Amino acid sequence: MTLNSVTPAFVEHLRKQLPAAAFREVGPAYLEEPRGRWQGRAGVVVAPDCTEDVAKIVRAAFEAAVPLVPYGGGTGLVGGQLSPEGALPVILSLERMRAVRGVYTEENVMVVEAGAILQDIHEAAAKVDRLFPLSIAAKGSARIGGNLATNAGGVNVLRYGNARDLCLGLEAVLPDGQIWHGLKRLRKDNTGYDLRNLLIGSEGTLGVITAAALKLYPRPAGEGTAVMVVRDPRAALDLLALARDHMGEGVSAFELMHRQGLEFLAQELPDIRQPFDTHPEWFVLIEVGLARGLDPASALETLFAEAMEAGLVSDGIIAQSEAQRQAFWEVREQIPEANRRVGSASSHDISLPMGAIPDFVEKGREVIAALGAFRINCFGHLGDGNLHYNVFPMPGKTRADHDAERDQIKRALHDLVDEMGGSVSAEHGIGRLKVDDLERYGDPAKLSAMRAIKAALDPKGIMNPGAVLRAV
Amino acid sequence: MTLNSVTPAFVEHLRKQLPAAAFREVGPAYLEEPRGRWQGRAGVVVAPDCTEDVAKIVRAAFEAAVPLVPYGGGTGLVGGQLSPEGALPVILSLERMRAVRGVYTEENVMVVEAGAILQDIHEAAAKVDRLFPLSIAAKGSARIGGNLATNAGGVNVLRYGNARDLCLGLEAVLPDGQIWHGLKRLRKDNTGYDLRNLLIGSEGTLGVITAAALKLYPRPAGEGTAVMVVRDPRAALDLLALARDHMGEGVSAFELMHRQGLEFLAQELPDIRQPFDTHPEWFVLIEVGLARGLDPASALETLFAEAMEAGLVSDGIIAQSEAQRQAFWEVREQIPEANRRVGSASSHDISLPMGAIPDFVEKGREVIAALGAFRINCFGHLGDGNLHYNVFPMPGKTRADHDAERDQIKRALHDLVDEMGGSVSAEHGIGRLKVDDLERYGDPAKLSAMRAIKAALDPKGIMNPGAVLRAV
Repeated sequence: MTLNSVTPAFVEHLRKQLPAAAFREVGPAYLEEPRGRWQGRAGVVVAPDCTEDVAKIVRAAFEAAVPLVPYGGGTGLVGGQLSPEGALPVILSLERMRAVRGVYTEENVMVVEAGAILQDIHEAAAKVDRLFPLSIAAKGSARIGGNLATNAGGVNVLRYGNARDLCLGLEAVLPDGQIWHGLKRLRKDNTGYDLRNLLIGSEGTLGVITAAALKLYPRPAGEGTAVMVVRDPRAALDLLALARDHMGEGVSAFELMHRQGLEFLAQELPDIRQPFDTHPEWFVLIEVGLARGLDPASALETLFAEAMEAGLVSDGIIAQSEAQRQAFWEVREQIPEANRRVGSASSHDISLPMGAIPDFVEKGREVIAALGAFRINCFGHLGDGNLHYNVFPMPGKTRADHDAERDQIKRALHDLVDEMGGSVSAEHGIGRLKVDDLERYGDPAKLSAMRAIKAALDPKGIMNPGAVLRAV
Repeated sequence: MTLNSVTPAFVEHLRKQLPAAAFREVGPAYLEEPRGRWQGRAGVVVAPDCTEDVAKIVRAAFEAAVPLVPYGGGTGLVGGQLSPEGALPVILSLERMRAVRGVYTEENVMVVEAGAILQDIHEAAAKVDRLFPLSIAAKGSARIGGNLATNAGGVNVLRYGNARDLCLGLEAVLPDGQIWHGLKRLRKDNTGYDLRNLLIGSEGTLGVITAAALKLYPRPAGEGTAVMVVRDPRAALDLLALARDHMGEGVSAFELMHRQGLEFLAQELPDIRQPFDTHPEWFVLIEVGLARGLDPASALETLFAEAMEAGLVSDGIIAQSEAQRQAFWEVREQIPEANRRVGSASSHDISLPMGAIPDFVEKGREVIAALGAFRINCFGHLGDGNLHYNVFPMPGKTRADHDAERDQIKRALHDLVDEMGGSVSAEHGIGRLKVDDLERYGDPAKLSAMRAIKAALDPKGIMNPGAVLRAV
């Protein structure tokens, strides 16, 4: 199916249907992405302020066979929000649709528009003494529509699940311009195919999410945070099992970090307070949120004592203040920034069956060593089996020195992940970065089903062409 | 698309490809359903013992354009497992595929074949000191493939979610006979469209689930169960909020029951021990599973005391033994049997936004009263907003006396549910019983997307034709 570029006549057609305020200047804010890997292009940028106007724009694009790229906060790391090639697209930004449409405290539900910023949702939930647990580093600018379109993960997945698990209903505009009114606030609803989960994670290729009914949670009565030095990843897994044995679902975050991350932090962001005097080889950040009647600090102390006894941990600090808690988290959250400053030769967002992780860490090191001398910073959401596995040049070399090897490193590591039953995209999605990987590692039956679904729902292929599936 | 009946030549074709043991006699076990509303038919019943043979059968049906009905435990309540009309189908029973393929204790994952009986899965999980929380009354005969195909709910949804929430990966045969190898044991995997959730809840109309990777949970350190008399449904909701404020996710079941249910029990099953000397108008069954360091009985006592203070409850019993706990549950689980013996004029599996429930209970009563004199037994999974709303003849009359009014009652009640943002099928699914309701109350954009997906994945319409969507 050939797509047409946005033309002056097409823009004129839109101008007749939409208020002037809906038009935005085509500028860098819509054409760049955090990793600087792609340069986007746009024929027109529109920011409608209501679902009906979103539908008008989609219908116009459908009728004219013009590509359309839904745009949230622009924080995606795999290029799903940009159109570097092909017909000049409409960029449809949700930035003006950020209302909280309703808060249903007794139902633990909030209905928000797709352009709402994640941090604003956190604050709206806190106002009614509730928690919206989805939390990612980009929360200050990421918008919930994009979080849902990419099924964002983050630091609380262990306890509360991915974005998918936090959504009860959606309102969306389908590729032919029909509005799906699916904002149900129901915990059980078995009325037909799961269109909600099909749109969630489809990265804007099957429709435009315009609003969502989100799950809220009671805030835990008490929270506690600790860092503990673990013997190795195996011990970290055993510690997690022990923690869950003690505290059940109360364990809300369990992040593994490596000495390499602390070294990069010390080097690139020396003002950040380090948790340990000497960098341990491996350590974890544990956060727990417990019900009434339990004291998180003493629960963490008991856990630590038992873990010492079992030889899993050798050192640990339980946060004694909110400032200390934040300092622990700052270490975790600034490691990606330190990584960025050092400049990786290759970065990977992967997941593995939990039990396979210790073995993977070993084998990954061997696979990389076989390709040359590199530094590895392997860290991430251990409780979800999700590692950010980043390969860095040795001191004195730069990312650019390894341009020729990047594909080889990626291939070797992804082959290993695939062999071990893992995923080459744990939480960042496919976007444009991993279209090849999906074709290589994806199950053929699933891929053919995906292509059939795409063709059925978006017969002209206007929705974010080239993301997830190769444009045909 | 015209479908062809199974012919002797087709059966012969299957016999050449499958072992003799795969063929079953066409008999009542495959042609009846629990409510006796439909009579199924079959041209042949096959029970393959491996996924490859399932694929052979689906491929043969695809090539010959013969309808195929996947068959689990046969416990569905909406006729999804039967083919009362149209071309004579193949019934594909999963009964011989019930192996536990793997237990990954440290990952809290179990991989089972689709024919595994739910109760057997519970026992396999208990053997490794884990919990598989999906629990429904039919657990002794329901098979996990059917539980997933219908996205079964049950009594633990409040804490652990529906069948959908308990599944990490699937293996399935798609309508063209391709095998999707999607048995990943991953908590995060953002590689393309969510085919897993599309198959879950599609009631066998998009493929045959052959195996699943299921989530297990640690068993709570201590459990407690209580029944409490509540002032009304409003008070029950407030009690639930209070319980979650005390115990967070620890609240695992919260079932609302009505005096009418106890009266039917006393009348139809007089041997069952009643929890209260006089039947209260409304009461709830609460079950909690708490982490180490908390005593469930004393937590329930504290809850009860605060709820008394707040005027929410007037009486209550905390189970002091496993026998007493089972007695409470028996009341809940035998109410449907008592209902069946009395014979409802009309039964409804509905859900509502939690906050709308008290209002719905009031209005429902008015709507029914406007249609005549009836008894109402409204009970169910209040914590999930899921009510089983059953309308009974007055004493001396029978179900048959109301045959003419059944549709009218259903319509009036479903109209009310729809008006209030609810669902006309909370946990039982659409099957064949609610195809009309789905067309009436379903969102038009969603319905057209569903039809497009069905046509794309099952172009000949062989998979369970007439279930969920009207056969075309």
